[in-house]
Amino acid sequence: MAGRSGKSRSAVRAVQLAPGVAGSSRRVSRQPAPAKPETLADVGKAMVALGRQARAAAQELALAPTKAKNAALMAAAGEMRAQVAAILDANARDLAAVREHRATAAFLDRLTLDPKRVEAMAKGLEEVAALADPIGSVIARWSRPNGLTIERVRVPLGVIGIIYESRPNVTADAGALCLKSGNAAILRGGSESHNSSRAIQVCLARGLRAAGLPDAAIQLVPTTDREAVGLMLKGLDGAIDVIVPRGGKSLVARVQEEARVPVFAHLEGICHTYVDRSADLAMAKAIVVNAKMRRTGVCGATETLLVDAKAPAGHLPALIAALIEAGCEVRGDAAAQKANADVKRASEQDWSTEYLDAIISVKMVDGVDAALEHIRKYGSQHTDCIIANDEDTAERFLARLDSAIVLHNASTQFADGGEFGMGAEIGIATGRLHARGPVGVEQLTTFKYVVRGTGQVRPG
Amino acid sequence: MAGRSGKSRSAVRAVQLAPGVAGSSRRVSRQPAPAKPETLADVGKAMVALGRQARAAAQELALAPTKAKNAALMAAAGEMRAQVAAILDANARDLAAVREHRATAAFLDRLTLDPKRVEAMAKGLEEVAALADPIGSVIARWSRPNGLTIERVRVPLGVIGIIYESRPNVTADAGALCLKSGNAAILRGGSESHNSSRAIQVCLARGLRAAGLPDAAIQLVPTTDREAVGLMLKGLDGAIDVIVPRGGKSLVARVQEEARVPVFAHLEGICHTYVDRSADLAMAKAIVVNAKMRRTGVCGATETLLVDAKAPAGHLPALIAALIEAGCEVRGDAAAQKANADVKRASEQDWSTEYLDAIISVKMVDGVDAALEHIRKYGSQHTDCIIANDEDTAERFLARLDSAIVLHNASTQFADGGEFGMGAEIGIATGRLHARGPVGVEQLTTFKYVVRGTGQVRPG
Repeated sequence: MAGRSGKSRSAVRAVQLAPGVAGSSRRVSRQPAPAKPETLADVGKAMVALGRQARAAAQELALAPTKAKNAALMAAAGEMRAQVAAILDANARDLAAVREHRATAAFLDRLTLDPKRVEAMAKGLEEVAALADPIGSVIARWSRPNGLTIERVRVPLGVIGIIYESRPNVTADAGALCLKSGNAAILRGGSESHNSSRAIQVCLARGLRAAGLPDAAIQLVPTTDREAVGLMLKGLDGAIDVIVPRGGKSLVARVQEEARVPVFAHLEGICHTYVDRSADLAMAKAIVVNAKMRRTGVCGATETLLVDAKAPAGHLPALIAALIEAGCEVRGDAAAQKANADVKRASEQDWSTEYLDAIISVKMVDGVDAALEHIRKYGSQHTDCIIANDEDTAERFLARLDSAIVLHNASTQFADGGEFGMGAEIGIATGRLHARGPVGVEQLTTFKYVVRGTGQVRPG
Repeated sequence: MAGRSGKSRSAVRAVQLAPGVAGSSRRVSRQPAPAKPETLADVGKAMVALGRQARAAAQELALAPTKAKNAALMAAAGEMRAQVAAILDANARDLAAVREHRATAAFLDRLTLDPKRVEAMAKGLEEVAALADPIGSVIARWSRPNGLTIERVRVPLGVIGIIYESRPNVTADAGALCLKSGNAAILRGGSESHNSSRAIQVCLARGLRAAGLPDAAIQLVPTTDREAVGLMLKGLDGAIDVIVPRGGKSLVARVQEEARVPVFAHLEGICHTYVDRSADLAMAKAIVVNAKMRRTGVCGATETLLVDAKAPAGHLPALIAALIEAGCEVRGDAAAQKANADVKRASEQDWSTEYLDAIISVKMVDGVDAALEHIRKYGSQHTDCIIANDEDTAERFLARLDSAIVLHNASTQFADGGEFGMGAEIGIATGRLHARGPVGVEQLTTFKYVVRGTGQVRPG
């Protein structure tokens, strides 16, 4: 595969796409803005060059010792703290441009940086530095009767393209996770956050250089042209191994529809909590309220509550009352409406809606098998939970449901790489291949087989 | 995902696509031919129905105990032995049709069955039955400080589409591996082998039924219409999780180009053997001749020999002489031509050619780093080998080369699931995701997280 060759590296470097990174100025805001490609052909050429740089950097990074990668992360954190004024200045320019377009409050909140948020990003880099390095670890080792020893050794995936919305912090998070796992990152953030993302990426690139690693290991697409996304989804002439979209459903849907390279993503998290007849009511109330209301905007938030028709008569009203008391709007079937006068009638559409808001749909079902049937029909194979004291019922649910995460007697909001003990995560995947569930540094790797012999030839 | 629902199973079964399978006749050849769809719209409808049947069967198969899966395999093996006359009769019809088209001898050989080959297929089913069942095994288990226990449990991928050429035995091999790993298989064999494949698939389906498993778990596409392949590559409305192509480069290239679902494959195996200055000549000769000539048509056959310029002067002539003596045509660079008058001049094209024949390209390179550079430029990331007694040089090669399989002092022809101790393989993958290297039953699985709690809710 010629695209994987390192041969043209120096030629590629001559087309450096982020001149600011190579500059000697210490003040981000004084650096020249990146040269923006003017035409579609320019965008295409620039993106292919960027892909080649990433591939060359990935080859170096794959062999980088843990110490160097951690040094780069620590140096980047220091750089971020030193450049806080420049980062906030860049962010102010982004915010000024956006306010003219009358953005929503939620959008502005995601886009806005302040000294505390910059510090949190720097801390995040340090936390990734503290994670175990997955690269080079021997996943399995065995010997064959003919004396061959076979090892399955963890290696980086290669080049990861991250396409995200206007959340500048993703630049730091995603860049750091790719670096730690030995992968080069091509970052394409939302156009409204371009100045902020660039100021952050400059800190990451400086960290890489300080540690003697190629700064092209973490690149930001220099144009806000939407065509650049299309080119990334086609893989940049084989330069991108995996795409990770981070953002809302429409972004993920576009990526899944158009991508010609593998994608780690979940389109939506229509998570269910089923309360079995054998559930403890107090536990069920605590879990259901937490699963829905702790944070309503996360993908692991429960969107539908299913209650066993054979549960004690008071359970359904008590669960609904607890949700309403916590500030949740409840939309339900006839049984739920009967249980509480404030319940609105759920439409067919409600059962397949990811509210990401303080709204829940509630349905009475005829036992665990009916719950499984409902979840199979309406769920998104993300995260689903059973609350039950009967072990056989719980095990039936856990075994028969084919979601990335299935839980027994715990909140669906635990669907998170940090809560799983993986450290930071780049997202949660509901696809069946390679990375499923939380995607942390280990999931950003692949493996190769290393076979050692003493002259063996194959008979026959 | 509605396509994953089991709700419409009975409706789907009513559109049974393989009526012969459901028949009570014991003689395959007497069964009615499957109803062939007449128009493109018919093909589309039939294929979507087949996909739904496969999905429903996969849901059942995912929960099937090991005992039932093994019983199905053993029963299918018995069925195959009982039906040997019917299978050979079907094969004779395929052969008669093909001879009219003046096929090549190699093609006819691959297509031809005889009693010995049928027995080998039946034995193959028994061997798959003897493999360990990967499904349900706990890959990892850990606890969190809050008391949650997390398990990563192996589950089937789901539905696997296998697209192959006119080798009827793939029907049995691929069907068996999918069944053992709890996956449903949609088999689409070459049109010239359709009758043979169908006779074999009928035996597999009978084995499934004998074990109380859904016979739709192993289906053969009932039409030889090429449009059916295109529909499979689009995933049949979400019914297919992975496509495995088995065949020549043009088949794999089409699949990789058109597939909208993940593909486990290798386009070609341009495998290299590098003989370092530190190599033992006798070992090098034995390995190189084996790596090229044991079987020239397998993907793990060495296609290019690289010899260190600093190796003793006699090594290159001795290696070339050994290859020529074994019946191999040698095409080389100037150094190789100088070493032996029978060496033809290699063209640039030779370095990226998978001969799959008794031909090898030979080049002198300036040490291990030049060997790595050549392999990165021309290789296919399949399997590459270094022969060296110097451990540091060997480790440098193994660490720096990013092929699915890297070997030290052993023949590249060991690139094989059986030789790796995985039992049978469905193929070898050079992609970076999920399955890399030999694809056996374990590689046909994925995992889910099973989290068990005692009422935990997530703080914050």
